[in-house]
Amino acid sequence: MKSDIDRGMKEKDIAAILVRGPAQHNASMTYFTGLVHLTGGYLLKILGHAPVIFCSDMERDEAASTGLELRVLSDYEPMKLFEAAEGDINLADAMLIEKILREYDVKGRVSIYGQGEAGATYSTFNMLEARYPEVVIVGESMMDSVLDLARSTKDAEEVERIREMGKITAAVVADVVGFLSSHQAKENILVDRNGDALTIRDVKTKINLWLAMRGAENPNGSIFAIGREAGVPHSSGTDEDPIPLGETIIFDIYPCEAGGGYFHDFTRTWCLGYATDEALALYEDVLEVYETVYESIKPDVQTREYQLMTCELFEEKGHPTICTDPRTLDGYVHSLGHSLGLSIHEAPIFRHSAMNKAVLTPGMVFTIEPGLYYPDRGMGVRIEDTVWMKPDGELETLVDFPKDLVIKIPGV
Amino acid sequence: MKSDIDRGMKEKDIAAILVRGPAQHNASMTYFTGLVHLTGGYLLKILGHAPVIFCSDMERDEAASTGLELRVLSDYEPMKLFEAAEGDINLADAMLIEKILREYDVKGRVSIYGQGEAGATYSTFNMLEARYPEVVIVGESMMDSVLDLARSTKDAEEVERIREMGKITAAVVADVVGFLSSHQAKENILVDRNGDALTIRDVKTKINLWLAMRGAENPNGSIFAIGREAGVPHSSGTDEDPIPLGETIIFDIYPCEAGGGYFHDFTRTWCLGYATDEALALYEDVLEVYETVYESIKPDVQTREYQLMTCELFEEKGHPTICTDPRTLDGYVHSLGHSLGLSIHEAPIFRHSAMNKAVLTPGMVFTIEPGLYYPDRGMGVRIEDTVWMKPDGELETLVDFPKDLVIKIPGV
Repeated sequence: MKSDIDRGMKEKDIAAILVRGPAQHNASMTYFTGLVHLTGGYLLKILGHAPVIFCSDMERDEAASTGLELRVLSDYEPMKLFEAAEGDINLADAMLIEKILREYDVKGRVSIYGQGEAGATYSTFNMLEARYPEVVIVGESMMDSVLDLARSTKDAEEVERIREMGKITAAVVADVVGFLSSHQAKENILVDRNGDALTIRDVKTKINLWLAMRGAENPNGSIFAIGREAGVPHSSGTDEDPIPLGETIIFDIYPCEAGGGYFHDFTRTWCLGYATDEALALYEDVLEVYETVYESIKPDVQTREYQLMTCELFEEKGHPTICTDPRTLDGYVHSLGHSLGLSIHEAPIFRHSAMNKAVLTPGMVFTIEPGLYYPDRGMGVRIEDTVWMKPDGELETLVDFPKDLVIKIPGV
Repeated sequence: MKSDIDRGMKEKDIAAILVRGPAQHNASMTYFTGLVHLTGGYLLKILGHAPVIFCSDMERDEAASTGLELRVLSDYEPMKLFEAAEGDINLADAMLIEKILREYDVKGRVSIYGQGEAGATYSTFNMLEARYPEVVIVGESMMDSVLDLARSTKDAEEVERIREMGKITAAVVADVVGFLSSHQAKENILVDRNGDALTIRDVKTKINLWLAMRGAENPNGSIFAIGREAGVPHSSGTDEDPIPLGETIIFDIYPCEAGGGYFHDFTRTWCLGYATDEALALYEDVLEVYETVYESIKPDVQTREYQLMTCELFEEKGHPTICTDPRTLDGYVHSLGHSLGLSIHEAPIFRHSAMNKAVLTPGMVFTIEPGLYYPDRGMGVRIEDTVWMKPDGELETLVDFPKDLVIKIPGV
């Protein structure tokens, strides 16, 4: 939580945090500013002091609405810096940041954040360090940086916003169920009233529409993958493909608040009309593992323990897993889940490695998403919910939604 | 265009280009891959060779759909690297990139690209350079990097995609006109059938819905700014505010293809029901300057010349401009336009500075968007279209849409 930032800075000997870039789709900045329309700027958080935001004059009203202490960049004469840098905007940026850091008398370790182009980041901050030797630029990793660790536990307002996105997500998933089951089947594929095949594109277009109606955004699209494509975890489905009965469909949806706010992440696996025994057996294995793992999760345990448990449970049922064969493409081939918030993937991760030291802590919001994948058998199953570890250490599924495998299709 | 990449690399002595990150909302990667669902990976383009993409096994099918030469990251044993790096994922990334570069025998200057967190970029590439002294990491700027310069001229397919987004944009703008003018006024504000005030939020919700319906995405929101807020160029409008008659409304909309593809950028200024003489005079000044500048634009001229011309035209009409007072908040306070494509802001820019050496070239797609801003008088006017400099050097407005100031409201 935000209240952890100063403590984290002290522990890691960080004198200041500098965040760069827009306030939209830029989690490190949005964490401080909220969802406002700032196309660029800087945020400086000095140990023990409230953050200050530096923005363009054109965006001063938007920046003021954050409630943060505000400086306009024209105070630093950016055009003069551009001239002095002979048009090298990376150098001009380095000079601008240097001017800010000197004015605020920042010395020591400065940890940098914010989404940006690799080339600009690399050259600007290396030039800054060369120009201003009183600071050491620190590039922490998303696994254990001060900000990422603070962000890894959510306060009550953040949890409610993720839950609200979950309600929107569940409403859209219910719409999709209604949409699919309002169609009939012809020669084993879904068709509309004219007898034309429904396609994955038709479904995805509706998903985006129904999300937008409810104020959500879908920046990374959705996975609606059928049969063999369901057998490859991140295949998103082929737009032109029809939608057959009886095959496994993995529907994974991960929208966020419009403008780049809090995410939710949710997956169901469906068979339309009927399920084969083979698909049903996979589904039952995944559901059982989901429930067993869910019941076991406790605070103060390393995330990797649950990845190991998931592997062991699947292996007991005869499935290959990445714990024993890191390169397997069959069976259980990914991690149990991931934290989420202002980004869809946050720390902690659940990687099974002695080097993954992440520990589950009350306040964390993360996915549980075991799955089984058999591309050559043309099927895959994944079940995913977003859960919250409450202050008392109990888990809560943020939004309840049925996990049934089969969706009824009229006449089947 | 893509065909300029090898020449640019040769001119700047770049041995290889390395792009990192997802294929969505990451222009440098999307430029090579197209819009596919890749959540991360690397792309290596060696001088004189076709690019190679490196992706997770889970995303091999998506990556294959790009048509690029494909390698899976498991070939590089990322779990072993994670262990060797003792869980430091920035170091593990540096080791992974080192392994790729050594395998492909890359030596010399390597220019890096792709959206990413500043801390990870800074530390990963500094560690890489320390580990593999045969390469020099180059952080070019978006003003003159090899890729940005290649991207600054569009091929026929790119122009058609930007035009297609323009048609969608214009259709949504027409919907907004229809929506506003279907309302009545009560006590000078727009109200619905129940007599309740329409708000900016109502309009923006519809905009997102109408964009989604047409397959577009609105990652940065829209500006719908009224009165004093219209007088500050990037104020996006206050959601709760009602919509009054007679005041200037700046409506600036800049959506992209769903998934983070090509953008379009478009602005109109409206007064509902009637315009005051003061607003009309501002509007006429902006429209006249728009038309004069549009008619003058020719290839092989520096962009800054048109910014200077715009300033001079506005000053002749008695308005302050940033050319003479860089800190003015009244009058003409921003640049004439910007290039756009897979990003909403690309090179070239139109900054009025001797250090801005950008030259207009056939194939460029950019905005022309003069405006006048008087926050203390409670008004602002901007007119913006996206234009293409055709191969013959002539300008073409990609989508025609009326520039009328006044929108009729029934009964007014």
